[in-house]
Amino acid sequence: MSTQELLNKFDELQKKLYAFGHAQMLLNWDGSTFAPEKSVEGRGITASILAGETHALMTSEDTGKLVKELQAAEGLEEKDRRNVEIFAREYKKLTCIPAKEVMEYTKLRAEAEQIWIKAKTDNDYKLFAPYLEKLIAFQIKFAKYIDPEAKVYNTLLDDYQEGLTMDTLDKYFAEVEKTVVPLNAMVAKSSVLPRAKEIKERINAKGFDKEGQEKLVHALFKLQGLPEDRCKIAVSAHPFTSGANTNDIRYTVAYHEDNIASAIYAALHEGGHAMYNLNINSDYNYTSLDEGASMTMHESQSRIYENNISRSKNFNKHIYKLAKDIFPKQFEDITEEEFYIYCNYSSPSLIRIEADELTYSLHIMVRYQIERMIFEDKVDVMDLPEMWNKKYEEYLGICPPDDTHGILQDVHWSFGLFGYFPTYSLGTAYSAQFEAKMREVIDYDGALEKGDLTEITSWLNENVHKYGKLLIDDEIVRKATGKEFDPSYYAKYLEKKYTEIYG
Amino acid sequence: MSTQELLNKFDELQKKLYAFGHAQMLLNWDGSTFAPEKSVEGRGITASILAGETHALMTSEDTGKLVKELQAAEGLEEKDRRNVEIFAREYKKLTCIPAKEVMEYTKLRAEAEQIWIKAKTDNDYKLFAPYLEKLIAFQIKFAKYIDPEAKVYNTLLDDYQEGLTMDTLDKYFAEVEKTVVPLNAMVAKSSVLPRAKEIKERINAKGFDKEGQEKLVHALFKLQGLPEDRCKIAVSAHPFTSGANTNDIRYTVAYHEDNIASAIYAALHEGGHAMYNLNINSDYNYTSLDEGASMTMHESQSRIYENNISRSKNFNKHIYKLAKDIFPKQFEDITEEEFYIYCNYSSPSLIRIEADELTYSLHIMVRYQIERMIFEDKVDVMDLPEMWNKKYEEYLGICPPDDTHGILQDVHWSFGLFGYFPTYSLGTAYSAQFEAKMREVIDYDGALEKGDLTEITSWLNENVHKYGKLLIDDEIVRKATGKEFDPSYYAKYLEKKYTEIYG
Repeated sequence: MSTQELLNKFDELQKKLYAFGHAQMLLNWDGSTFAPEKSVEGRGITASILAGETHALMTSEDTGKLVKELQAAEGLEEKDRRNVEIFAREYKKLTCIPAKEVMEYTKLRAEAEQIWIKAKTDNDYKLFAPYLEKLIAFQIKFAKYIDPEAKVYNTLLDDYQEGLTMDTLDKYFAEVEKTVVPLNAMVAKSSVLPRAKEIKERINAKGFDKEGQEKLVHALFKLQGLPEDRCKIAVSAHPFTSGANTNDIRYTVAYHEDNIASAIYAALHEGGHAMYNLNINSDYNYTSLDEGASMTMHESQSRIYENNISRSKNFNKHIYKLAKDIFPKQFEDITEEEFYIYCNYSSPSLIRIEADELTYSLHIMVRYQIERMIFEDKVDVMDLPEMWNKKYEEYLGICPPDDTHGILQDVHWSFGLFGYFPTYSLGTAYSAQFEAKMREVIDYDGALEKGDLTEITSWLNENVHKYGKLLIDDEIVRKATGKEFDPSYYAKYLEKKYTEIYG
Repeated sequence: MSTQELLNKFDELQKKLYAFGHAQMLLNWDGSTFAPEKSVEGRGITASILAGETHALMTSEDTGKLVKELQAAEGLEEKDRRNVEIFAREYKKLTCIPAKEVMEYTKLRAEAEQIWIKAKTDNDYKLFAPYLEKLIAFQIKFAKYIDPEAKVYNTLLDDYQEGLTMDTLDKYFAEVEKTVVPLNAMVAKSSVLPRAKEIKERINAKGFDKEGQEKLVHALFKLQGLPEDRCKIAVSAHPFTSGANTNDIRYTVAYHEDNIASAIYAALHEGGHAMYNLNINSDYNYTSLDEGASMTMHESQSRIYENNISRSKNFNKHIYKLAKDIFPKQFEDITEEEFYIYCNYSSPSLIRIEADELTYSLHIMVRYQIERMIFEDKVDVMDLPEMWNKKYEEYLGICPPDDTHGILQDVHWSFGLFGYFPTYSLGTAYSAQFEAKMREVIDYDGALEKGDLTEITSWLNENVHKYGKLLIDDEIVRKATGKEFDPSYYAKYLEKKYTEIYG
């Protein structure tokens, strides 16, 4: 077959996978946003059949043969070569593990999730520990199949960000520790904190009805500059972003009457993820390139809109204006400055998903260090809760009263997701480096001051979004900023901001 | 293979088809209710791939072999036997036509729809005529493949209602002509009509905001007794009902500020379709039995809730109360009696989809007679517009000024749907026969008077809904009413009601 014929066949295969993916996306979307309560069983059947079809197609002999031929083919354009490369990596990951072990693992995961729910509810880590141990054993075995030479944890990290290693993360978290631990201690003792707490409680006590919050979220959609003909918002229990291609992206928010900041920043965060997906080169639609470069890069884009842009003093006032227009009574006695403090309230807490911008990375650092020990030092799972609690005490200055509020809080490990957590934090450091670069090349503060994100979004489109999965994170950071990834930008960003507010 | 093994294999096949069907349902649902405007291309790709996968699975040699073995298998329960029978009919229909001709036909349909849009817009029947002719030729050819012995139009009718023939429809429409034509003439000359017209214009002029109509539609959902945990409502341009299984049914409504009756009766109509789907025996989920017996039977259930129940004097007052509660200002000077007249406004019009309860069947009769002539008398397609106009003049007393408001008004023929129209009207006649039976066995009027549909819905559940596709229409009518289908019930229902209002 000629290269063109191979590419045509590959295109057909990818379109079919796209179609199954699109259907699975809709199934999840519908289940999270609209479907009636009792639809669970029927959705489960469809989900498992579509997943089975996808897996069968991805791992078929025909697919394997086509991948091999494409890897050997001559004259591939850069984008086709990369498209094949990503696909081949995925093919290898899916086929190198014996089917029997995949089935055992799938069964284990389903059980582990149920057990985790029970363990968390009953504060009973001992119940979950044997499952955690087995999940870890599977991770090690699978990582060895994928790359017998590599360190297991590096192979796991690579699954969420191609090329990510412990080397990068060790340096990164050293910077986090050096910077955030003292900043957090400073905030905890700051005389501003009691005032911030009073403001927060006063605002939350006002109550914000769902209808008004919905209006506000749609106003933020416009302020953020998202395109109405390609992007929609719905409501779900936990905010998330998904989509089928660059012309069909959707995200959700959740409304809490006693916390208006929650919907505001969820909308801006998910809007950032959406902005990324919407602006990938549309030539990449229906291929492996139509995705963010990594979980990390995705998080950099959600966080840059949520934090760097929307929690800045210059831009926050535009959010304040919109909120005040929609909730005039509630905002009667709230000043712009108070709203800024409210939106940047910081206080160490035990629960990751409730953490503020400053302390968030400390939560991730604890998880990274523990995961690293699991795979590098082979620690006993029974020792993990104590390690967890000590680290919270050491880094955040607070100690979980029980495992429910400690090591059992996150669902990730019960799903077999190890190596995922670091991407939540590392992306934030990219954001800071991108911001620093934008300050050099465009009137960044002026844009925020005007409340017009056109130039900022254009820069991100051109330097980050458009590549999709064509480049890996390190290449994007290097091309975009002219420098290697450097966590000191993040350190400087946090130091400046938190010293200004709480110093 | 043992019968049980065959059934297990069949179950697996049907679950897979269910999964593809579920995905296709969601794709349409999302496209009609939520997806962003520009998502059309990506949805088209997925739709065509899922349709292709479904077709490949339905028509594969393995499927053919399994169907044959199941047809020959011994000891099948009634429900399994019928499930296989329906599946085998579908298999035969899909496989008896050469693939090449299916492709030609699919291409023709896509073109014909575009041409129909242009012809309708430009009032240019000549443009559409050659496509109509080719579509008819395909219908004839395909019907001959399916059953070389049968009359073509009977084969087409059978596609929308198993067992339906021209014999039944000839008798039915003779009754319609005998009853509705004079009733319509009576209404047109009635001294009540000017008053009804004044009431209609006065109410519509008040304006009903979307938010209020939405509240009203949800109140009607409760009044109708639909289950919130298995059924949901959304908004789309044209109301429709769809779903995946008995635990996941959804329907849509559309809101027009200048016509509150439109949303009310669309909701009750679609709610009737939903009620049917929700109450099919849940053992039939994920099989060929989890469907209404026919398009006709489905229409009988939407119309019995919309017309027989909700347009009755006894029940209409409950709708009036709900509407008045939600729109107190608009209903300030509208009496219960006026609202009843408003909801039963009747006047011959040119457009089927805008027709009222009384004249609707006349629109269908015109289409039935023309389709019958096309396939039985081989009339020239160029003669159809004149026939159409004459029939409107004769039956409805009005003549279309052009083909856009005449023969070009419906999309159906451009889709290749011939034999579909009659089901829209025949179902209404079932409704009347069911109503007459209910009057014998339960306190029908008392239930409407109380605004409590529990007993009525239970009767329909038990006598119609639960069977799904286990029985054909004639069997359901016979079992439910103790009599063969008899259109005189419909005649009597209309005569009584319209003489009371307009006589």
